[in-house]
Amino acid sequence: MRLALELAAKSMFTTTPNPRVGCVIVKDNRIIGLGHTQPVGHAHAEVQALNDAADKGFDVAGATVYVTLEPCSHHGRTPPCADALIRARVARVVAAIGDPNPLVAGQGMARLAAAGIDVTLGVLEEEAREMNIGFFRRMQHGRPWVRLKTAASLDGGTALHNGLSQWITGDEARADGHVWRARACAILTGIGTVMEDDPQLTVRAIDTPRQPQRVVIDSRLQISPHARVLDGGGTLIVAAQTDAEKEAALRALGNEVIVLANADGKVDLPALMEELGRRQINELHVEAGFKLNGSLIREGCVDELLVYLAPALLGDAQGMFNLPPLDSLEQKRQLGFHDIKRVGADLRILARFT
Amino acid sequence: MRLALELAAKSMFTTTPNPRVGCVIVKDNRIIGLGHTQPVGHAHAEVQALNDAADKGFDVAGATVYVTLEPCSHHGRTPPCADALIRARVARVVAAIGDPNPLVAGQGMARLAAAGIDVTLGVLEEEAREMNIGFFRRMQHGRPWVRLKTAASLDGGTALHNGLSQWITGDEARADGHVWRARACAILTGIGTVMEDDPQLTVRAIDTPRQPQRVVIDSRLQISPHARVLDGGGTLIVAAQTDAEKEAALRALGNEVIVLANADGKVDLPALMEELGRRQINELHVEAGFKLNGSLIREGCVDELLVYLAPALLGDAQGMFNLPPLDSLEQKRQLGFHDIKRVGADLRILARFT
Repeated sequence: MRLALELAAKSMFTTTPNPRVGCVIVKDNRIIGLGHTQPVGHAHAEVQALNDAADKGFDVAGATVYVTLEPCSHHGRTPPCADALIRARVARVVAAIGDPNPLVAGQGMARLAAAGIDVTLGVLEEEAREMNIGFFRRMQHGRPWVRLKTAASLDGGTALHNGLSQWITGDEARADGHVWRARACAILTGIGTVMEDDPQLTVRAIDTPRQPQRVVIDSRLQISPHARVLDGGGTLIVAAQTDAEKEAALRALGNEVIVLANADGKVDLPALMEELGRRQINELHVEAGFKLNGSLIREGCVDELLVYLAPALLGDAQGMFNLPPLDSLEQKRQLGFHDIKRVGADLRILARFT
Repeated sequence: MRLALELAAKSMFTTTPNPRVGCVIVKDNRIIGLGHTQPVGHAHAEVQALNDAADKGFDVAGATVYVTLEPCSHHGRTPPCADALIRARVARVVAAIGDPNPLVAGQGMARLAAAGIDVTLGVLEEEAREMNIGFFRRMQHGRPWVRLKTAASLDGGTALHNGLSQWITGDEARADGHVWRARACAILTGIGTVMEDDPQLTVRAIDTPRQPQRVVIDSRLQISPHARVLDGGGTLIVAAQTDAEKEAALRALGNEVIVLANADGKVDLPALMEELGRRQINELHVEAGFKLNGSLIREGCVDELLVYLAPALLGDAQGMFNLPPLDSLEQKRQLGFHDIKRVGADLRILARFT
């Protein structure tokens, strides 16, 4: 199953909106087939592994199949993997974790068992869930897993008061940040960051077979048609008010504009998360500024903070998140440290809201 | 030498102002004597180990001595260890690092070599220096190694605007903080912290054979005679102006008052570091507030930051250090992460100015 998880990790950047799955077929103590999820519409991990075994001339009848997610039982863009395993007459299927997709949710294992296959569920379950944390979040809650990235000095500064913020952390941290961008289905920022930094919001520091969807929160449609985040089109702009002319100009450049306003005339962030869930966004990567960061946290839209801390002091500077002062320490927003790693000269902290 | 370093660590809380030293005597591939520095005025590690071997009935003639610091060659409170080793007719002495004390500085090894003993210097040198980082700093620069401790939320908050700061981090981090207090020769705070938190500034969370010297920076002698930091007397109060009556009252309680003013009428912090060096303070532990922290850093008096980060957000709150805004990111104060460790639910970061 460890090997199957390693195979699943190979599809970290490619399977959107499908989960990342790895599969290992073993017969007579010998690995005869390996597979991992291919880009959407192509073979799932199990079929890949079956094909791999066949290509090598092995007969999979009687084999044991290790797979990091319960085999699917429904016709999606591809036929059900459970049926393929039954047809191949494998003897045993060991799945790391059940598929949270309500269209599967145990039916895959049930179908296999009904066909006389020995089934086991729940091996390295936590690792398997982590691998597809966004897919699980979307299937179970209809929203993406939202990871908010920020880079700060050890004393919590993210930008000077004159707006300068590039670069606080080093090259390795920036490249590492692009790995997290690449695995996300979408990257979100705000109009403030677009106007100040004019980011491309693409994955450049590492190779990736596909670029994530770009999303810009721009309540009053202030974005310039020359903003680099619109390069090549395909960017989703989320406004809080309509403006037919501006919308038409943005659409003419190949972008999409939607309007999602709350009662305060700002973008309804929780509603946007629902919308992104409907659009099959599993992991949403946020790289925004002080204000939008604070709004997202205040409105309960953030699951995880990805903080790069530089070994430096900025002193009196812009903080990480625009959050109001507290009256007592009991009101603090509680997280748990999930992972701590040194990246170059910097420190990477992954913390989750509890 | 690893074992000798482990022995040296046993004297972490007791040797002030002497360095922490460990010693292992080996003969015929057998460990025959162990020692580590005893409290000041008592046996050094080498003599301890020689005594240990004698107590067990071993003859140390011809043995090899592993010691974490060059044996002393001068008469201090105890006679020179080099002479004791010569008298014991050991064959070989391996020292981790040379003694930075100008009264020794190579003469210990030279004296051993002159007596026909085989000498080796420089084994696990970095670890040996770290063990006595304050002793090395004081001997080489006349000032203590200054370690500034702070506890903050992940977003850099150390206190609410209403002054509340207890507790941001958890029990384990507080106990760990007391280990760092205990190993220091002195603990320093400011009058602001004394008035707001009324700390005792003692080691309580762990057992320790001696309490560090307490030092309070109190420019205008505002300290109350009832402040808990004065409990039991022996506290050093550093003012920037004289006040015969207040000074007399503090002295009557068993405390010491010194006046060290700079041109701005505040306490001259660099001069205080020199004074603490003269007083044989090796490691100085600072637990102060936003303002004094900032002053110490601005005036170049801090070598190392000991930061406990809690997995929580405070939002708009007091920061770590009162430092002025910068005009460019090149002006940031650069550190290097020296050690990162999870302590309970919190994160401990040791960072050094570069």
